[in-house]
Amino acid sequence: MQSKADRQPRKPDRRRVKELTTGARLNKPVENGFSGPIRIVVDAMAGDNGIAPNIEGAIEAARISKGRYQVVLVGDDVAIKTELAQGVGKAEYREDDLEKYGVELVHASQSIGMHETPTEALRTKRDSSILVGLRMQKDKKAEGFISSGSTGAVMAGALLSLGRIEGVSRPAIASFMPTEHGGCILLDAGANLDCKPHHLLQFAAMGSSYCQYVFDRPAPKVGLLSVGEEASKGDELTQKAHQLLLDSKLNFIGNIEGRDILRGTADVVVCDGFVGNVILKFAESVVRMFFGSIKRYVYTSIFAQLGGLLIKPALKRFARDLDYEEYGGALLLGVDGVCVICHGRSTSKAIKNAVLVAYRCVAHQVNEHIREQVMSYKKEVD
Amino acid sequence: MQSKADRQPRKPDRRRVKELTTGARLNKPVENGFSGPIRIVVDAMAGDNGIAPNIEGAIEAARISKGRYQVVLVGDDVAIKTELAQGVGKAEYREDDLEKYGVELVHASQSIGMHETPTEALRTKRDSSILVGLRMQKDKKAEGFISSGSTGAVMAGALLSLGRIEGVSRPAIASFMPTEHGGCILLDAGANLDCKPHHLLQFAAMGSSYCQYVFDRPAPKVGLLSVGEEASKGDELTQKAHQLLLDSKLNFIGNIEGRDILRGTADVVVCDGFVGNVILKFAESVVRMFFGSIKRYVYTSIFAQLGGLLIKPALKRFARDLDYEEYGGALLLGVDGVCVICHGRSTSKAIKNAVLVAYRCVAHQVNEHIREQVMSYKKEVD
Repeated sequence: MQSKADRQPRKPDRRRVKELTTGARLNKPVENGFSGPIRIVVDAMAGDNGIAPNIEGAIEAARISKGRYQVVLVGDDVAIKTELAQGVGKAEYREDDLEKYGVELVHASQSIGMHETPTEALRTKRDSSILVGLRMQKDKKAEGFISSGSTGAVMAGALLSLGRIEGVSRPAIASFMPTEHGGCILLDAGANLDCKPHHLLQFAAMGSSYCQYVFDRPAPKVGLLSVGEEASKGDELTQKAHQLLLDSKLNFIGNIEGRDILRGTADVVVCDGFVGNVILKFAESVVRMFFGSIKRYVYTSIFAQLGGLLIKPALKRFARDLDYEEYGGALLLGVDGVCVICHGRSTSKAIKNAVLVAYRCVAHQVNEHIREQVMSYKKEVD
Repeated sequence: MQSKADRQPRKPDRRRVKELTTGARLNKPVENGFSGPIRIVVDAMAGDNGIAPNIEGAIEAARISKGRYQVVLVGDDVAIKTELAQGVGKAEYREDDLEKYGVELVHASQSIGMHETPTEALRTKRDSSILVGLRMQKDKKAEGFISSGSTGAVMAGALLSLGRIEGVSRPAIASFMPTEHGGCILLDAGANLDCKPHHLLQFAAMGSSYCQYVFDRPAPKVGLLSVGEEASKGDELTQKAHQLLLDSKLNFIGNIEGRDILRGTADVVVCDGFVGNVILKFAESVVRMFFGSIKRYVYTSIFAQLGGLLIKPALKRFARDLDYEEYGGALLLGVDGVCVICHGRSTSKAIKNAVLVAYRCVAHQVNEHIREQVMSYKKEVD
């Protein structure tokens, strides 16, 4: 465990926040450990905002690829071409832009809606964009998959199609959370509601590999979310997991509390999926409530209204830095493949950033690192 | 369970928020169900900001009492009088103000620090302000106790001195959280980390009585914090508790998610102490981080700086409405007495509001209601 000094909140890092929001950090060159071409599949049919953001994001990602990866769009052929006929996004991308930037189109006749029961939908819709896209990874025709569709359906589909990495008991959803220090990885964000201590150890190992390679942080600090800093503080699960983490080779900084998350005390925040999901949804609602409320308070006086106008650009920048959708989605860690689950309300930028996240995962062979890590703790797990 | 319409977030209620922050709602007349004089004890020695806020808060509360209750200050006689000799607070209260407003002084020679081990401190410091204050309730010399001291010490002291209400398995900490609709009660906020389903049922019953009588909301809506709205969503604990709540006579609106808390979907949010503690500490840090960050963003341009100046009063009002310390602390529900635990950084206003909370609890005989409620579920509990 690290000294007290290491637990102190670090100074806010604007450069880092900016690199992350703009995708600049994700776009940095990678020493490619993966041999052969990298193909990232984007589910064109998913999301709450229609198919345009997916198409635009996919083309944008392909445009900045510089030969590092190729983008594949999976979805209804006709729907995609109809959308492109009208010109997609600000740049008004047309059908010939697909060829120009090397975006391949793969047809899938069905799509799974946000409110369908995942298992039922996956069973009946074998030609859905989610299953077609994931199958490409299984058939070695692609290396990564991105969808802003129903989390349950994408997760179940990925587990079914790709299986788990050797040694991993429970795949987990790793969400990115903006912090004062540029952000942290929170996992599990909702895949596993009832956890055992060794699951939390595996989450820590997986999150650590992800954070190190995709977000470029050597020896990421791992914090265990609890109700107090001392090892003795916490419920039964946390107390036992604390011991396992102490015995691991991870850079474990000990327990952290709810108030430490946004301070950026840890790079990887470990908790069970129930706590992670509640915190994540709460955090998202705070951002929305906050900016909504500011308006109400500002409208109470004419001076404040004028001030509100002047302050607007700064507030917009602030809101963007806090916007969870800008960060490229959540990674489903532990499946034997690369699967990024984006928010239903994803913008084209979120989709583009998700492609970069998937690319970095493949290029850095994050799954290979996870397998090694998890197997080295296999003894404790058994 | 209620219809979908009832689950919709309600319109923000500025009047209600204001009443709560100013203490106006708490100060409303109560039909006194309690016979005899009500005496509320304030721990003068606790808190991070010295003893002045406690003294000021106690006198302020006494000043607006209008004969409804009497305030007792417990602590070191000399220290309190020395502080008063200099004039306490804006109104510069002096020693003769104690008599003027009928504040009684009870001497306690010791005090328990924030970082002492609760059990150890309680064992060795029999004459600490916490134990002296609580003992007054046991000896029927007082009806309520307020302290901004160490949560652990106050909680353990209250359990030891007062015992539990008949039928209550586990006392819980009920925290007030500001929401768009004026606020909700979140419990348990950290007293019980490993819970059984029937504990959550009891929390719901206790929180319901508290919310109904102290915050004047008939048939408060009870929401169970989980990861999805459907009854099937949640961990084992939540799923089982959901069933118990459905069978209860409480106004149970079903599961709520992290994002529903601030929307004010429920008046009483029920969860185990681990989740509650993490959420509460996270929420507190968000408020602080937000207002801290706004400054940084504003300093990036001269226009924004000017705007910042103009908007400042509105933001200050907003910050105050969100300030957890303004709401009069957390109530320890389930102990056979009234015990309010305030934040270590409590202002005199928070202390004053805490006195009003304690008074309302006594006057409304909240514990009597809790006892009735809990006993009616005794069958399920056994």
